[in-house]
Parts: sequence; C-alpha cells; structure tokens
Amino acid sequence: MTNKIKIAIVGWGNVGRGVEAAIKQINDMTISAVISRDTDRVKKEIDNRLPMFSTEKVNEVKADLAILCGGSATDLPYQGPFYANLFNTVDSFDTHSDIPKYFAAMNEVSQSKKHISIISAGWDPGTFSLERVLANSFIPQSKAYTFWGRGVSQGHSQAIRAIEGVADGIQYTVPAEQALATVRSGTNPELTTRQKHTRECFIALKPGADEKKIKELIVNMPKYFSDFDTTVTIESAEQVAERRKAMPHTGFVITSGKTGNNKALIEYRNQWDSNPDATACILVACARAAFRLRQEGRCGALTMLDIPPSYYSPLSHAELLRDWM
Amino acid sequence: MTNKIKIAIVGWGNVGRGVEAAIKQINDMTISAVISRDTDRVKKEIDNRLPMFSTEKVNEVKADLAILCGGSATDLPYQGPFYANLFNTVDSFDTHSDIPKYFAAMNEVSQSKKHISIISAGWDPGTFSLERVLANSFIPQSKAYTFWGRGVSQGHSQAIRAIEGVADGIQYTVPAEQALATVRSGTNPELTTRQKHTRECFIALKPGADEKKIKELIVNMPKYFSDFDTTVTIESAEQVAERRKAMPHTGFVITSGKTGNNKALIEYRNQWDSNPDATACILVACARAAFRLRQEGRCGALTMLDIPPSYYSPLSHAELLRDWM
Repeated sequence: MTNKIKIAIVGWGNVGRGVEAAIKQINDMTISAVISRDTDRVKKEIDNRLPMFSTEKVNEVKADLAILCGGSATDLPYQGPFYANLFNTVDSFDTHSDIPKYFAAMNEVSQSKKHISIISAGWDPGTFSLERVLANSFIPQSKAYTFWGRGVSQGHSQAIRAIEGVADGIQYTVPAEQALATVRSGTNPELTTRQKHTRECFIALKPGADEKKIKELIVNMPKYFSDFDTTVTIESAEQVAERRKAMPHTGFVITSGKTGNNKALIEYRNQWDSNPDATACILVACARAAFRLRQEGRCGALTMLDIPPSYYSPLSHAELLRDWM
Repeated sequence: MTNKIKIAIVGWGNVGRGVEAAIKQINDMTISAVISRDTDRVKKEIDNRLPMFSTEKVNEVKADLAILCGGSATDLPYQGPFYANLFNTVDSFDTHSDIPKYFAAMNEVSQSKKHISIISAGWDPGTFSLERVLANSFIPQSKAYTFWGRGVSQGHSQAIRAIEGVADGIQYTVPAEQALATVRSGTNPELTTRQKHTRECFIALKPGADEKKIKELIVNMPKYFSDFDTTVTIESAEQVAERRKAMPHTGFVITSGKTGNNKALIEYRNQWDSNPDATACILVACARAAFRLRQEGRCGALTMLDIPPSYYSPLSHAELLRDWM
C-alpha cells in the first residue's frame, strides 16, 4: 500500500526493535528505513528484512516521519535538531530538567523547516505527564504523586555494573507499599525520597571480588542509591543473565484533592512486561498524531500535552463518537 | 477582575451547585449568571449571591460560555441547540447511543454561530472515553473494560422509588471483585453483564407495603435489575435519608493487550466522594479549554477526545514544560 505512513527508525536498539514490532501490530504504517551509525552490527540482525541506511546516506531516505530511538544523554541533544531539519520527528527525550531547552531547540528547527517534532514521548515523560496534567486540571488544588516500579532501571543497572569486581548486575526500583497506601488514602502526605521507593540490586561477582566492600559501595553511592533503602543480593552470573532478558516496568500516577468540599482521587497505573516495547508503541501512536497534525498544516515542537487524544487513534472520528465515547 | 472567563450556569441542581463550588476553587473564572426555569426555587437558595435570570430573560445574560447542567433525557436535546445558538457551551450529554446524533445537531448550530460546543463532558462519557481511546491507541489490539462503582446510580434509585409501597430508596452499583481480578490478570476474558457488576438496593417501605412482592418486583425489573445479581435491604426512612445525603462514585477503565509480544495493561480509576461535584469540576476544566479554543478561532462541536490536555490546565505552557512533564 502506498498510502501508509512511511517511518524511518533512527537507531537500532531495544526501542528501535520495539518500533518494528509495534508497526507489525497496526495497518497504517510501514518502515521505509532503519538509519544507524553501525550498519555492520545492524545488518546482521535485520538482514534484508528492512531497508537500511548509514547516517552518511540519510539524504537518500524517503520517509514521512523519523522516530528517534537514541538516548537523551548523548544522542538526542544533537540527533534531535539534526533530524528535525530533515523530517517530522518523534523522540523520547527524558531528561526532565532539560525539556524546556530541548523544546526550544527543536521548535526553532521544525518551525523553520515546517516540520512537526513531538518531543519527550513515552511514559515518563509522556503518558504520565499527560495524566498528571489532566488529573490536576480536573481536581483543583490537588497534589500529584508518581511512583515507578516494580521495574528495571537501566541507569542504575549500568551504575552497579561499572563497579570493579562486579561481573554483571541489574537493579529494580520498587515503590514502597506503605507510601502507596498512604497516598491512596487521600491524606496528601509529604514523602521523602527514601519513603517513596526502595532499590533492589542483584549482582554476580568476579572471582576474588570483595563482597562486603562492593555492597557498601553500592548502598552508599551518591545520587543513585544513598538516598534510598537499598538491598544487594549476590547471585550467579547465569541467574543475573536470566533476569536481564526481561525489562518489565510498572508505574503509578496518583492525584488527590477536593472537588468542591469533597475528596477526589484519580489513580493511573501502567504495567509493561517490556518497557522498551511499550515506549515504542507510544512513540508509534505519536507518529500517527504528528503525521495528521502536519497534514493540517501545523508545525513546530509539541509534547503529548499538546495533542488531542483522537489523533493517536487509528479509528475514524465517526467510529470514536459511535463506539468509544 | 474583568479578564476572568464569565460563566453562565444553566440549571440549578446538584451539578449546577458543583459548578459554583468548582469555580470558587480556581482564579480564572467568574459566574455571571444562573439561568433557571424555576427562579422562585433557586432564588431561595442563591439569595443575592449570584446574578439570576429566568429562561425568558436569557437574552440579557452576558457570558463567555454557558455550562449546561440539565439532564440528557429531556433537557439537553432541546437545551443544547438552544444555548449553542447563543453561547459557547459545555454539557454532559450522556446517552451514549445518541451521541453521534447530538454531536451533529450541536455542530450544525455552533458552526453557523461560530461558537464552540463541548458535548458529553464528565467522567463517562468524558474522562473515561478519553482513557479508553488513549489506552487503546498506546496498546494495539487491546481490549477495554469499564467498571462503575461502588457508587450511587440516580436512574436506578429513581426506578426503585417509583414502585408502589416504597417510601424511599437508593441503589449502589458494585463492580464484581472476581471480574476485576480476572481483567487485571490480563487474560482478556469475555464477561457477561451479570459477571461484571452487582446491584445493592436499600429501601424504606410505606406502612402496610408487601415486602416480599416489592423485593421480587425490583430484582426482576427488566433493563434495570433483571440482568444483575441484585440484593434488596429494608431500612428505616431515616437510614435511607442518611444514605441519600452522599453521592459517591468510583469507576475503572482497564485496558489490556500486547506491545509487540509482551503483555501490557493500563488501569485508570477515579474515586469521587461527590459524583456531581466531580462532574462539575470536569465541566469547568472543559469550559477553560473551550474558551481558549474559541480564542484561537475554532468553532463547532467537540468532545473531550478532540481537546489537547494542556488546554484544560490553568498553568501556562512554560510552567507545564518546566514542572509537569
């Protein structure tokens, strides 16, 4: 079909693979390119299944939209504006404190090129941002609480794997049941970082490694673990490898306040068996919205806060009115 | 302040009162009129606190927007188009099967008068519609389940109060715990009406009423109770009156499917101590969105599926980007 939305996947990692899987589940998109810096590696995996382009050949790519699957720390700050210059884009920029700056940079490029750039899509930032803003708008003077987990944190896992003597490791972020229960009771408590989440590390040690010293290094690591109650469990390399096959994640946004003089509470929860696949599915829905907004003549940077919900859906306006209201 | 959004409340019942309470909680709106068919009744309650207009004097009302607080069965089918002819409007039309027809009627009037009409706002239809469409867009090939309760159903309460021999009564809709648990497990079951909800009735009898006959009439009442497991409990008139002071409601939208080959689930729950106050707060947020959309030149009928989430919020775009993403 020639009228499918043509998607270029930029970057072939877990999220890029997830975008391929997500597009297989729907009927209105096709992958016209996988763009990578490392075509040798990617070629082995995608074979001739998908058209592949090195970053040098990006000008040959024909696509309605590029989904940027790179990371926020080093990839997106330059990849974002680079690709917004060439295509409509969707990305998952997730360094919360830098979002205004990144928005401004992307908006400047995409306005000048008459492209749409949806930034910071995914679940947090993304759907969780959406739910925080919706609930805060519907329940005036409310307080929003976000809990992450139980789920794998890539950043924290990388931090423990970088420690000398650690052969392999994985970290789970776990919301504290007591904190969840208190928030659900509608009392709007003040909660410290330590009260909201605990952290569970599972590591395999290298031969001769000092278990006690490594455990102390982990639980006292500033920024990553020192503000949390952290447990470290030693496992075999096989056990940790088995854990690393799955990347589940869960999260909660709970908003509590009053409507008039009456208590009101909204709780939103998502539960993903695969965090990157879920992120990819949200990026793909955003791609559909971006394509439609561009067709209507819109351009510039947007977040999920700026998108009418119906634009994400493959269903027609008439279908939505009839079956989904 | 002259730059507040001027709201006319049409109809003074529980939702109308809730709109007054909601506007007290925020800073960007003011009530410029309460419009009622029954000014004698309303005058007693609102005194000189709010400007009151009979429906005959509606042409004297100055407002940026009218919030229509009438019911869907008899009020809104004619009130909607009547007020859309005069004002931007927000209403909570909730007869699901008639939404396409009502949308078309409202769209015709508001397009021709260059007004915005947001229809079917509230929580179901409304925020629940929004959540069903969002989750279905983010989790492809998913199935959505909606549960209502525990909460008071006005329609069912009225139906039992209409029975001869019943002095007073109230009905609670209750989601079945077993059904909720099965849906949360992600197995996407097929559930019958009877499996999803139960109904609990509390009634006070008139002297000499036939308890056994009344109970049978209730549990076998077509459309209302015969498809459900229904319990009827006899209480004193005072007990039922006490119950009727509160109108709490809760509800769930659970969407379950797969992202790629992995299970995914989104659960949304709201918990209102006052159903009409919560509905009113959502209508007020929609009024803010309608006002902004009209300022941008938009006109015609819209549902909550058509509104970017940021438009509901009193916060600026810069604040949302900085603090709420």
